[in-house]
Amino acid sequence: MSRPISIAVHGGAGTILPELLTPALEKEYKHHLQLAIDTGHQLLSSGESALVAAAAAVSVLEDCELFNAGKGSVFTAEGQHEMDAAIMCGKTLEAGSVAAVTGIKNPIQLAHRVLTHSEHVMLIGKGAEQFAKEHGLKFENPEYFFNQYRYDQWQQLKGTKKFQLDHSEAIRDRKHGTVGAVCLDLQGNLAAATSTGGMTNKQYGRVGDSALIGVGNYANNKTCAVSCTGSGEFFIRSVVAYDISALMEHTGMSLEKAAEKVIHQRMLQEGDGGVIAVDRFGNIAMPFNSAGMYRAAKKNNEPTFVAIYK
Amino acid sequence: MSRPISIAVHGGAGTILPELLTPALEKEYKHHLQLAIDTGHQLLSSGESALVAAAAAVSVLEDCELFNAGKGSVFTAEGQHEMDAAIMCGKTLEAGSVAAVTGIKNPIQLAHRVLTHSEHVMLIGKGAEQFAKEHGLKFENPEYFFNQYRYDQWQQLKGTKKFQLDHSEAIRDRKHGTVGAVCLDLQGNLAAATSTGGMTNKQYGRVGDSALIGVGNYANNKTCAVSCTGSGEFFIRSVVAYDISALMEHTGMSLEKAAEKVIHQRMLQEGDGGVIAVDRFGNIAMPFNSAGMYRAAKKNNEPTFVAIYK
Repeated sequence: MSRPISIAVHGGAGTILPELLTPALEKEYKHHLQLAIDTGHQLLSSGESALVAAAAAVSVLEDCELFNAGKGSVFTAEGQHEMDAAIMCGKTLEAGSVAAVTGIKNPIQLAHRVLTHSEHVMLIGKGAEQFAKEHGLKFENPEYFFNQYRYDQWQQLKGTKKFQLDHSEAIRDRKHGTVGAVCLDLQGNLAAATSTGGMTNKQYGRVGDSALIGVGNYANNKTCAVSCTGSGEFFIRSVVAYDISALMEHTGMSLEKAAEKVIHQRMLQEGDGGVIAVDRFGNIAMPFNSAGMYRAAKKNNEPTFVAIYK
Repeated sequence: MSRPISIAVHGGAGTILPELLTPALEKEYKHHLQLAIDTGHQLLSSGESALVAAAAAVSVLEDCELFNAGKGSVFTAEGQHEMDAAIMCGKTLEAGSVAAVTGIKNPIQLAHRVLTHSEHVMLIGKGAEQFAKEHGLKFENPEYFFNQYRYDQWQQLKGTKKFQLDHSEAIRDRKHGTVGAVCLDLQGNLAAATSTGGMTNKQYGRVGDSALIGVGNYANNKTCAVSCTGSGEFFIRSVVAYDISALMEHTGMSLEKAAEKVIHQRMLQEGDGGVIAVDRFGNIAMPFNSAGMYRAAKKNNEPTFVAIYK
C-alpha cells in the first residue's frame, strides 16, 4: 500500500445557519473550499511537502474575498486591514508567525518566509512588513482589500467600542473569520497553516489565537497538525492546538477523540469555534461546537468531503 | 497547619559565570532578587492574591536597571525600547499580554490591566499604548530607560544584522534578559507573570516567548504556574510553559520532575534557559540548562533562597 496523504481546510466557524446563506452563496463557499483542497492535494500527490501544500491551500482562501483573511479581511477601527498568520512544520518544529501586518497579499506566505528565512519565529507590525519587503513578498494597495460588504459591516460599528470577529449576531450572524489548512505529505511529515483578517472594528492592536504557535496553530510529527478557528481569547487561554497534541502524546488518545475532547470538554465553556486536525496516519478530525464551520477534507484519492453546517 | 504560600522570581538566564560578575555586582543582583521576593511575600502573607503579588514582584525587577525589563530594557535597532509582558491567573485562566510597547514604566502592570479590563488577551504596539493611556498606566520618557551600559551594547551592534538577547558572548556573556514571578496565595490560587525588554539591536518587530500565553508564561490551579527565560524562539517551538502543565496533568508527574524533564529532555536541544514554577502545594522548581539563572524563592516563612550560578 502506498503512503497516505491527507489535507483538511477550514474557512471559519460560528453561527452559520442555512437560513443565513442563499443557495448561490453556499455553492460559492463550497467551490472555494474545494479549490483549496484541490490545490493542496495536487501538491501533496506530486510529492511536495506538507508545509508548502498547507501554505498554498491557505493562499487560495486568502485570495477569495468570501473569507476573512487576505483579500477578504475585515476593517479595523481605523479602517485598515490588520492580518495575522502562522505556519509550523511537524518534522522540524520550525515555525513562522506574523501579526498586525497590512498590505501583504498573502500573510501565510510571509509566515512561511519567516519560518524559512528568519532566526525569529514571530514578527509583528511595521517590522514584519519591512521583512516582507526585503524578501520580495507581494504587496497590494488598499483597493485590493476593499469590499463593500466588509465596509458596511464596519460602518455599523465605527465610532463605537463594539467589535466583532466577523459578522456579529446583531448584524447577521456570528462567525469567526479565519482560514486554515493541515496536511500530511508522502514523506510522512505534518504541517499546519492558519491566517486571519481579525475582527471588524478591532482596536488596541488586538492579536487573536491565529498567530500564536501552540494556540491557534501547531504541528508535530509525533502527534498531529492542528489549525483553529473561533473566539480567539478563549482558544488562547485553553492553549487549544497544543492541548490536542499533548493529550495524544501523553494518554495515547486517538486524534479524533483528543480533538473532540478538547473542543467539547476541555476548552473554556465560553469558547466557540472548532479545529481541523490530521495525524501521521492521515486520519482527519474536524470537531466544532458552533452552528457551522466551513470545512473540507480529502484523504488519498477518496472523494472530497465539503460541508458547512453540523 | 496553615495554608502554604510560595513565591519564586527570576531575573534571566544564560552564560552567567562568577568570573563575569564582580562581588559588588553579584551582591546588587541578589539584593534586588531579595527585594522582589520580600515585596511579593509580604502581599501573599497579608492575604493578597497570587496575581497581585506576582505583578508586584515583577514590577520591582522592572524598576531595577540591572535586569532587561522595564527600566533596564535593551535598545532595539532603532534605538528604542520595545517591551513585552504577560500575566495569567491559575484560578480563572484569565490572561493579559502586551508586546512591543514603548514608554510604559511597568509593562507587567499593563498586562495585568489587560487581564482585568479588556475583552482581549493580547494587545500590541501603538494599540496597547493607547489602551494604557486610557487606563492611566504610568509612562516614562526615553531618559528614564536610558542606561549607558545598554547603550554601549547597542553601539557595538548598531547598523549590523546582529542582535542579542541581552549580552552576547561576543561582548561579555550570553544572557537571556527576562524577569518573572510565580506565586501561590493563601486561597490556593496560582499566578505567573513575565516581562522582558527584548534583544539588543532587535529588528522586524520580533516577539519572543515572554508575551505568549502557554509558551513563556502559564498558570492553572490544576497543575502549576510557570515563568520562562531563555532563547525565546526555541521556547515557542516547544510550548514550554504549557508542556510542564500538560505533563503534570496527564501523567501525574510532580512539578519538579515535569519541569526538569521539559528543560533537560523535551525542549529543543538548541534551547537555552530555564523556568521558575510553583504548584498548588507550594512546591517550587527552578531548573535551567544554562550556566546561570538569577533566581530566588521563599516558601511560607522559610529563609529566602537566592542564587545565580549552578
